[in-house]
Amino acid sequence: MSLAIKNGLVATQNSKRDVLRADVLIEDGRIAAIGKSLKGEKSIDASGCAVIPGLVNCHGHAAMTLMKGVADDLNLEQFLDRTFAIDARRTRADVKAGAMLGCLEMLLSGTTTFLDMYYHEDAVAEAVEATGIRGYLGWAVLDDDKTTQKGSPLKNADKFIKDFKSSNLVRPLIAPQGVYVCSEETLLGARELAEKDDVGLHMHLQETRHEVHEHEMKTGKRPIAWLDGIGFLNERLSAAHCVWLTINEIRLLKKNGVGVAHCPVSNAKLASGGIAPVPEMRREGVHVGLGTDGSASNNCLDIFQEMKFCALAHKAHRWDATVLNAQEIFDMATIEAARVLGAEKELGSIEKGKRADLAIVDLTAPNMSPTYEGNLISNLLYSCTGANVRDVIVDGKVVLRARKLKTCDEAQIAKEAEKHARKLLEL
Amino acid sequence: MSLAIKNGLVATQNSKRDVLRADVLIEDGRIAAIGKSLKGEKSIDASGCAVIPGLVNCHGHAAMTLMKGVADDLNLEQFLDRTFAIDARRTRADVKAGAMLGCLEMLLSGTTTFLDMYYHEDAVAEAVEATGIRGYLGWAVLDDDKTTQKGSPLKNADKFIKDFKSSNLVRPLIAPQGVYVCSEETLLGARELAEKDDVGLHMHLQETRHEVHEHEMKTGKRPIAWLDGIGFLNERLSAAHCVWLTINEIRLLKKNGVGVAHCPVSNAKLASGGIAPVPEMRREGVHVGLGTDGSASNNCLDIFQEMKFCALAHKAHRWDATVLNAQEIFDMATIEAARVLGAEKELGSIEKGKRADLAIVDLTAPNMSPTYEGNLISNLLYSCTGANVRDVIVDGKVVLRARKLKTCDEAQIAKEAEKHARKLLEL
Repeated sequence: MSLAIKNGLVATQNSKRDVLRADVLIEDGRIAAIGKSLKGEKSIDASGCAVIPGLVNCHGHAAMTLMKGVADDLNLEQFLDRTFAIDARRTRADVKAGAMLGCLEMLLSGTTTFLDMYYHEDAVAEAVEATGIRGYLGWAVLDDDKTTQKGSPLKNADKFIKDFKSSNLVRPLIAPQGVYVCSEETLLGARELAEKDDVGLHMHLQETRHEVHEHEMKTGKRPIAWLDGIGFLNERLSAAHCVWLTINEIRLLKKNGVGVAHCPVSNAKLASGGIAPVPEMRREGVHVGLGTDGSASNNCLDIFQEMKFCALAHKAHRWDATVLNAQEIFDMATIEAARVLGAEKELGSIEKGKRADLAIVDLTAPNMSPTYEGNLISNLLYSCTGANVRDVIVDGKVVLRARKLKTCDEAQIAKEAEKHARKLLEL
Repeated sequence: MSLAIKNGLVATQNSKRDVLRADVLIEDGRIAAIGKSLKGEKSIDASGCAVIPGLVNCHGHAAMTLMKGVADDLNLEQFLDRTFAIDARRTRADVKAGAMLGCLEMLLSGTTTFLDMYYHEDAVAEAVEATGIRGYLGWAVLDDDKTTQKGSPLKNADKFIKDFKSSNLVRPLIAPQGVYVCSEETLLGARELAEKDDVGLHMHLQETRHEVHEHEMKTGKRPIAWLDGIGFLNERLSAAHCVWLTINEIRLLKKNGVGVAHCPVSNAKLASGGIAPVPEMRREGVHVGLGTDGSASNNCLDIFQEMKFCALAHKAHRWDATVLNAQEIFDMATIEAARVLGAEKELGSIEKGKRADLAIVDLTAPNMSPTYEGNLISNLLYSCTGANVRDVIVDGKVVLRARKLKTCDEAQIAKEAEKHARKLLEL
């Protein structure tokens, strides 16, 4: 089946960052052509709309949508006490219900790919397949004596990978939670498993001063140097947060091909202090994408809002309005994010041969008016929210149309989420 | 005519900050009762919704909606060069078209009252009366030799006040632009006129280091001390920005009853440096509301987004997640904002006798699920955007219903705005 997206203003995110008044033709789940007067068996009129690459969320915990507003305005220690207490009660069915709501929330805000880290990722995978979003799903790995998972996390991860390796929308990953709960043995086991199964790795890294300091006290090295020393760092790895970095640590990330998921809203809300040195990472050639983190520390999964906050936070931090301009940050939500996932050949731009993952944004909404070629990227950054997304296409399939989910019953998702939240939160 | 808002979760913002499952009865443009089983001649079902006081935007330039995305990622000097060049070409009809779009954008995001500063405020007043929003409209005043207005700004302001003094939705103000374009004579003339006509004053104040430094070089005093010295500060005045303040300046504001419009997004985007000392202002008893500023430096007029950014910016700046909690910031968009306008007896909370200015927020949207009594304020702060607003009532009149404007033709507003923007920006 072929589908033509007609008459939109296309933010291609190709190497020239062309913004074109053009049609986009989709065939067999991939982009077949970008140009004038393209015809498909079906078509969608995108007059008055932007057509953009589906946004990529590089770090989150979709199941935590059930925990909106349970741990706000708390410093990290109290935040973790509150959220871990709830985590300990969470069942597989709670994870599924939360992930369904999270996938819906992400699709409604133009995200077509997300990277997740949690346990019961098989339940998240079911939510991915049911809703039609694309998921890079990392099974959380901790030392056997530190986890609440049944059985060994590495064995659970191995099983999860086998079960979903051939899924079209799911890419399984192994996700060591962080150096504070993963020994050298666990980390190298995760790396070995990733090589054997040919999958990616994802972990939290140098999010807080406490994490860095504690690890240095224990091992004599800061986490990144220590991970480099044990031979853990490699191209399969993407790391979330990376707030507290030295320039030498940035160079170690670059040397080892490690990508970074920058989560500015979460870092600000938890007051991790400082702000990740994104301009320096980009200058040194480290790929940096954006992540929302989970709904307890954000509390929304809208990458448009993450982009705007990212821009504002860095400008305010540096006293320099020219830092990280609109195009650079739009890159971090699209093509650079795809590089963080190692998926730049498949995702992150509207170019012939790539997966047809697209969002169609209504430019006639009052908050987006007036938009023209010259301010499109600016308006996507500074004026747009996820609520301006009209349609979403994943893998060539129309998943959202006129803000209605085509794959599942939205009311049912909301009802299930409410039911599970009430039980989980003991309301 | 009486109207009952039925079955909502009411964030009253009364002195106890009660959140009640209750009906709200409106009679003759005012809130007549809050309670169970209230009946009106007409009713709106707010099941699954929050009912909140209409949000108050304490500082902006509504006509600048036409200038979205024209001056992004620029430091203040280049920003002013670019925007002033466009300002100089702007006609009264451009101001009207931009203000119509701005009023629409604000209503769509739950704002029922805004404070504006511009010239041609009579055109903004027409937009207020046409759309049905409430406007505190400040005629911009500069020295006669520094303005592009025809005639004397103070005389123009006086005429504007006379023309709109009896309007139901418009409250005219006098708005000296700032100490950098207003002499002592102009400022005292503005103050005298405000006394004579019994209206408020509004001005930009201590937004940048440059402004403070330049004034100190010129007069020997920083702006606030100088304004205090010439007898300009008084209870009629609200001041926008106030980023660069000492504790003694905060105490001078308090002593003189001056309220502050905090514009964190604009300050961050223009990289004014630092962040306004809001916790100290609140501690000293200065009333602080939120403002979006104009669409060239934000670039949206959604107070929900301003609230979230305010929370995140202060937490990140102080390395303390407990600074300015959700309730405090919601106050800054409602009851505290009303105090900044000197309108706390009329606006800012849902209490018997106050003006019926309300927004109804859809809590069943995926990004707002699950919401219950215990996390309502949190979710309004951290998960909500203006797009979750379903209905808006101003002065007892339903202005927005199911996100459709009842007072004007939205398509016509957008079309006019586009036409004027293209001419103004020479596209």
